[in-house]
Amino acid sequence: MRNFKMTISYDGSRYKGWQKQKETDLTIQGKLEAVLSKMTGEEILVVGCGRTDSGVHAENYIANFHTKSTWKNEAILYYLYEFLPEDIVVKSIELVDERFHARYNVKSKTYVYKINTNRFRNVFERKYSYHIPEPLDLIEMRKAAQVLVGTHDFQSFNMKPGKKSTVRTIHSINIAENGDHLEIEVNGDGLLWNMVRIIVGSLIEAGRGKLNPSEIEKVLQEKKRWEAGPIAQAKGLFLREVQY
Amino acid sequence: MRNFKMTISYDGSRYKGWQKQKETDLTIQGKLEAVLSKMTGEEILVVGCGRTDSGVHAENYIANFHTKSTWKNEAILYYLYEFLPEDIVVKSIELVDERFHARYNVKSKTYVYKINTNRFRNVFERKYSYHIPEPLDLIEMRKAAQVLVGTHDFQSFNMKPGKKSTVRTIHSINIAENGDHLEIEVNGDGLLWNMVRIIVGSLIEAGRGKLNPSEIEKVLQEKKRWEAGPIAQAKGLFLREVQY
Repeated sequence: MRNFKMTISYDGSRYKGWQKQKETDLTIQGKLEAVLSKMTGEEILVVGCGRTDSGVHAENYIANFHTKSTWKNEAILYYLYEFLPEDIVVKSIELVDERFHARYNVKSKTYVYKINTNRFRNVFERKYSYHIPEPLDLIEMRKAAQVLVGTHDFQSFNMKPGKKSTVRTIHSINIAENGDHLEIEVNGDGLLWNMVRIIVGSLIEAGRGKLNPSEIEKVLQEKKRWEAGPIAQAKGLFLREVQY
Repeated sequence: MRNFKMTISYDGSRYKGWQKQKETDLTIQGKLEAVLSKMTGEEILVVGCGRTDSGVHAENYIANFHTKSTWKNEAILYYLYEFLPEDIVVKSIELVDERFHARYNVKSKTYVYKINTNRFRNVFERKYSYHIPEPLDLIEMRKAAQVLVGTHDFQSFNMKPGKKSTVRTIHSINIAENGDHLEIEVNGDGLLWNMVRIIVGSLIEAGRGKLNPSEIEKVLQEKKRWEAGPIAQAKGLFLREVQY
């Protein structure tokens, strides 16, 4: 069996997230599997690097699939470009070791979260950024971010309580400002479900002066979900890169 | 009567252009008049700085309207922000001289046309740029642009043949490159219907090596529409600024 690794960008606006579901065909995985299965005549299973929620976007999502077919890389790329919906694009494809697994082999992931602080919504970016029409204090946001960087038990930033360990490592959080546009880039490993959006929600609260670094510290220690900030909107979040 | 001047941005994707039509309520003018009429209880007529076609966008469109009502600027701004669709935003409003006319008083207009030359469409910009997946020769495009700058009879760049003069002035055409993104900024006065899109279509042909400067010169002189380049897609065009 040949194993192909794909780099995919998608506009998640109209999808119910990455993962295939019985109730809807509006998932990225579902669309990819349908086109690849038609192309190869096999029942293709696409393995993604992780779930993305409904409305979340991806600049460079990584997935892999196995096939017996002998299609060449370029031919697969053309076929996908032609038959996928206009909001999903496979940008590259390469033959990889048969054991490569897009999810198990992930070392870390980089997400970016986009915020627009202009008084008015930007009509061209309204589906691709979170509109917060008030000034945010970047210094406070960066201080709060530094509390979260490192290895911690992120129980308070987890949406699915359970018995599994919630100890994770955030390698970096960078906040860049360009006029009224903010970009928060988070790199970490094994990020929990919705963790980035809860981190961003907490940083926004810090930027509003409603959470200070010692309170964030306390939130981490108390390990209760309801202590962290509210979850930031899905539409501002992009999976930027996956490191293997 | 008080006369208000508005600066408006809109995503033209789902509209049939600026101008109100009997057949559809999907026009920018129609949406604005409906909300302003409801607000004031009067039948408000909104005068725009010119027509934009179906699918064309605006960063800073200018329009004015007269009203007897005593609403304050900020209150009007809030009302419009609340009740206009999410793809139309009035960004500022000011009281102006009663004789100000958004169309008659225009001195010149600046349009920008966005092109993406990447091999693949950009899923996030697919409604806001023209995707031309091939390299374009900027030097040739700039040479061709220089032929068009100045006062000429733009009959060959006119979509509506008629008896009216088609002599117009293009003040400048600037082409900026940023990776695989091209922006063509055109400033001119009294631009004819679709003239910018035909100019861009011709510059693209120049960039492909299919029209050289002397051929563009000849197109101008021959004054036949079918000699110029094909019309570039509406979705790449933005009205950037209006000068009064």
